[in-house]
Amino acid sequence: MMAMSLDGYVARKNHSLDWLNKQPTQNEDHGFFDFMDSVDALVMGSGSLKTVLGFCEWPYVKPVVVLSRSMTKQELPEHLRDKVEFSRASPQELWEVFSEAGYKRIYVDGGAVIRSFLNAGLVQDMKITMVPILLGGGIRIFGETACDVDLELVSAAPFPSGMVDLVYKLKAS
Amino acid sequence: MMAMSLDGYVARKNHSLDWLNKQPTQNEDHGFFDFMDSVDALVMGSGSLKTVLGFCEWPYVKPVVVLSRSMTKQELPEHLRDKVEFSRASPQELWEVFSEAGYKRIYVDGGAVIRSFLNAGLVQDMKITMVPILLGGGIRIFGETACDVDLELVSAAPFPSGMVDLVYKLKAS
Repeated sequence: MMAMSLDGYVARKNHSLDWLNKQPTQNEDHGFFDFMDSVDALVMGSGSLKTVLGFCEWPYVKPVVVLSRSMTKQELPEHLRDKVEFSRASPQELWEVFSEAGYKRIYVDGGAVIRSFLNAGLVQDMKITMVPILLGGGIRIFGETACDVDLELVSAAPFPSGMVDLVYKLKAS
Repeated sequence: MMAMSLDGYVARKNHSLDWLNKQPTQNEDHGFFDFMDSVDALVMGSGSLKTVLGFCEWPYVKPVVVLSRSMTKQELPEHLRDKVEFSRASPQELWEVFSEAGYKRIYVDGGAVIRSFLNAGLVQDMKITMVPILLGGGIRIFGETACDVDLELVSAAPFPSGMVDLVYKLKAS
């Protein structure tokens, strides 16, 4: 579940999401809370974490794992230290840990993390909110992959703001 | 009017469109003929021309201008020499020539050409057919721009093949 500009960016180069705030999405339900209810945990990179730490409130109820080789809990505000774990595990290793913990559905956030889970074949479905803007630069959601990833469209829902929620399943390859 | 993979590519690195041919679009009307009826001429780059020259039939009825600094008419099959013009003009110069000829609506095709017309402020609307596939590499439709380009969603139409036709207007800046 990611908001993406029509030219494929999830954030500006400085991780800013200001371009999302200028969309007139008042009273639109893009399914954030339903979606969060449906997952057992979240995985994100340090870039996404930094963006979220800039929000007024911590938006997640579920456990969050941040993939980082350098960050430590000391860098977190105290009230988040029991909500966020840091890990250097590979997507496959992480998936095994999650499976042992009984986790079935993980939300994977952030360009680099999404790419590594895609490349490991560990993504089953994705929801993209297509935002009506060209940013002309920034952090991309998708990157170079060796093979085509064939998708099946589950639904396409336009909203008055001009955002379009696109839900895809990955086709078995 | 461009078909684009979800990760933002209009063709593979070698200009191939084979990934479009594997979409099950039988009997789907993505409005190609209506759209072509609505324009007075086409502008494309040499890359797009090479792709189109590989088709069994020349798909255009309207005049085509190819922006190229190096190609000449001698490189065209004889039956196309009166249908295609080469030009080194800038988007602004070309637009002035078209206006004098009474042309009102031009179809701009190909990544680099779209970018140059966007940067010149000469794009009014765009139709993107979002194809349910990640290519992981290729030729991008959108490139670096200095400023945000704010869009207004006109329509979003999903098709049984999983393609979604997205029509946008550029907001006045």
